[in-house]
Amino acid sequence: MTLKEIRRKILKGDIMGLFRLSPKDEKLMQPSEVAQIFLNLPGASAIKAFQGFPEKNRILLFPYLDNLVQKQIIKEVPKEEASKILNTISSDDLLIFLSHLKGVELSDTLKYLNEKNRKAAHNLLGYPKESVARLINTEFATITRDMTIEQAMEHLRQFHQDSETANVVYVVDDEGKLVDDIPIRRLVLNERSKKIEDIMDGFYVKLNIDDSKDTAIDVFKQYDRAALPVTNENNVLLGVITADDVFDVEEEKSTREMQKFGGLESLDYPYVKTPFFSLIRKRAGWLVILFLGEMLTATAMAYFDHEISKAVVLALFVPLIISSGGNSGSQAATLIIRAMALKELSFRDWWYVMRREVLSGLTLGIILGTIGLVRITAWEQFHWYEYGPHWFLVALTVFFSLIGIVMWGTLSGSMIPIFLKRLKLDPAASSAPFVATLVDVTGLVIYFTIAAIILRGTLL
Amino acid sequence: MTLKEIRRKILKGDIMGLFRLSPKDEKLMQPSEVAQIFLNLPGASAIKAFQGFPEKNRILLFPYLDNLVQKQIIKEVPKEEASKILNTISSDDLLIFLSHLKGVELSDTLKYLNEKNRKAAHNLLGYPKESVARLINTEFATITRDMTIEQAMEHLRQFHQDSETANVVYVVDDEGKLVDDIPIRRLVLNERSKKIEDIMDGFYVKLNIDDSKDTAIDVFKQYDRAALPVTNENNVLLGVITADDVFDVEEEKSTREMQKFGGLESLDYPYVKTPFFSLIRKRAGWLVILFLGEMLTATAMAYFDHEISKAVVLALFVPLIISSGGNSGSQAATLIIRAMALKELSFRDWWYVMRREVLSGLTLGIILGTIGLVRITAWEQFHWYEYGPHWFLVALTVFFSLIGIVMWGTLSGSMIPIFLKRLKLDPAASSAPFVATLVDVTGLVIYFTIAAIILRGTLL
Repeated sequence: MTLKEIRRKILKGDIMGLFRLSPKDEKLMQPSEVAQIFLNLPGASAIKAFQGFPEKNRILLFPYLDNLVQKQIIKEVPKEEASKILNTISSDDLLIFLSHLKGVELSDTLKYLNEKNRKAAHNLLGYPKESVARLINTEFATITRDMTIEQAMEHLRQFHQDSETANVVYVVDDEGKLVDDIPIRRLVLNERSKKIEDIMDGFYVKLNIDDSKDTAIDVFKQYDRAALPVTNENNVLLGVITADDVFDVEEEKSTREMQKFGGLESLDYPYVKTPFFSLIRKRAGWLVILFLGEMLTATAMAYFDHEISKAVVLALFVPLIISSGGNSGSQAATLIIRAMALKELSFRDWWYVMRREVLSGLTLGIILGTIGLVRITAWEQFHWYEYGPHWFLVALTVFFSLIGIVMWGTLSGSMIPIFLKRLKLDPAASSAPFVATLVDVTGLVIYFTIAAIILRGTLL
Repeated sequence: MTLKEIRRKILKGDIMGLFRLSPKDEKLMQPSEVAQIFLNLPGASAIKAFQGFPEKNRILLFPYLDNLVQKQIIKEVPKEEASKILNTISSDDLLIFLSHLKGVELSDTLKYLNEKNRKAAHNLLGYPKESVARLINTEFATITRDMTIEQAMEHLRQFHQDSETANVVYVVDDEGKLVDDIPIRRLVLNERSKKIEDIMDGFYVKLNIDDSKDTAIDVFKQYDRAALPVTNENNVLLGVITADDVFDVEEEKSTREMQKFGGLESLDYPYVKTPFFSLIRKRAGWLVILFLGEMLTATAMAYFDHEISKAVVLALFVPLIISSGGNSGSQAATLIIRAMALKELSFRDWWYVMRREVLSGLTLGIILGTIGLVRITAWEQFHWYEYGPHWFLVALTVFFSLIGIVMWGTLSGSMIPIFLKRLKLDPAASSAPFVATLVDVTGLVIYFTIAAIILRGTLL
């Protein structure tokens, strides 16, 4: 069956079960595959299709659905069913769903939870949105050091049949404090008569409940784990975070970073799901700020209007010169922002970066300046355009201006992110358009000042 | 001990072992933590420190080191040791190391491998750099469906003590074809007398050896697995890919995407490790192309030099107007490129995106145009600048030009990535500077054309 056929089947309500969409189908479908199809269903059909599945499958499917569809489902299905779904899905999926709700929506939804889940959710939602507490899975498997492997396995069979994160089990003491983590494969690969403490290596990596999601990303990257335990300040094990949730967080973070760098406020939902006016608001904010900043170019140009009217030829190169500053600044900003995001650079390296970028700017400026010089000379020699008797002085003005502006663009583009970081602000806020605007305004001043020096007594 | 102290110890060669850096240290260090410190050691010290560790620990540490340090180590240590290291590390780490070598370096290094590893490496290096074959781990654990769980566990204990990926074991038939995957925890959680086929669910997700790394990223994201099996076209199991390697690939991909979007060729090494002239080359290429494109602005301006000399006031708003087009274009390009990278949009959606972006451009253009109109009116009314008797016509020119240019910027920014994708090119190649350059040139034409219409008979 093609995806299209499956989609048609779902829309027609012709569904045999979540994983087997027709009686003849040999291949079973995964919940995430079905969720993929739901992404493109119109709202009402999605609810109807969802309710067409057997209850067990509804619960399996729910965590994979898009947050907007989830909200709609909880709003539309009978109260008992909403309650059943929310109380059965795993605690991290529940928490991630709740994290997307606000105000009345949240308090209404909390009513569906049973006492235990409501208390846990209340507690974890108390942590800031950016903390790892919002990703925690509270169903995890624990054993103690004095068990034998045989006993530990029996214990897991009895008490942890559905711990999602049970590729690793955690050794805790009487007070629930974390002692070690043991991959389940180590239980299998050792003789069953051995004691747990004999197969412990005393080595574990953990997160604190107060740690930020960014810290979690870093730790996962450094240690290559599939899951990490989370403890409170007394080292009591509170839950487990899995790599796939952190992978999602990383992806969202990259998206926000890119959107900021592109010169707009980051979106809360995917582009296609963002309502038109919300999209306009996210874009207009920065666009207006940049526009107000860019207005200074009109002021700067007005300041030099006397020079322009005397030598119109100067105006011809304004766009070329300021855009070269913007482009080189955007390159430098990209390199530095990304290197800081990957922890290759920190504030302490500012002096190293500065020397390197001044030199880069000089080299790149000389390259572009030379091309500019050759261009003007060629046009003049071949009579494609008449720059007047002082054409060579104009060419020299363009040459030196390009060197100055490309150096200035490179320097601003590389230093602004570093200093934003130092001020504990997001380096990506120094977006490409922001750097370009800054360089446009100052670039004009550089250009006309150099022109004034070189052309005094001739054109000016 | 602080990181600084540890670093000093390593530099002094005062090392007790990889994981315990002084006799008094209670806490053991992980290889990845030691590798972190190596990142900042000067070359010669790194080699010396590396050789200060016991052999077992050298082998544990090697895979975590930076590729440049790895190369240096293999070049500098005795031949037997290089051979020992490369033949002992896991096959995916070996392959990733080899993938960074070229020409003579590669053939020299292949000599260090034993027959089996060399054959495997030769085979896998034959696949393109972008294929999953380059990430494959060939040490994996297999069982057959007719074993009991007890027998399977015994089999794993005997033959797969050091399968890195053994959180999951693979059920294969007599010909080595993949039948199912079974998380080890399922072995533990079921009665040991059960047969493997009784705990199979017939459900597995796999990759083909020809699949691209991008496909691997998508599949890992969709199915939230820690490892995925890789088969050939006959479904014979060839190896396993782990999530952490894919996580690294995803990060490299994001970096390349951002660098392209910032208007430079993507770097092969981190910013700090890229030699100066290689950095210049990566940047100069695009900068020169953009500069050549931007030269068309000088041509466009020259075409209108008659208008500019008659109405210098028009020149004043050139930077403001063209940059607004660039900024709105950069916003639109960011949104669309990211949405396509996340598979939220595809080529088929171009008509939807176009309608949406034309409307966005119109709205944003009216906002900026109004601000521009108010700005000119205010300056004129308060006599901050004299735009002459026809100031209101100038203001109208700016108003309509901004609407036109912002719409045009938004439209180009959103459509170019979509059509690049259609041409099977990388959408991120339509970088912010590229869109800005395009819009600069065409924006000038829009501006002066509107000026010619509105100002004919008065200023022009």
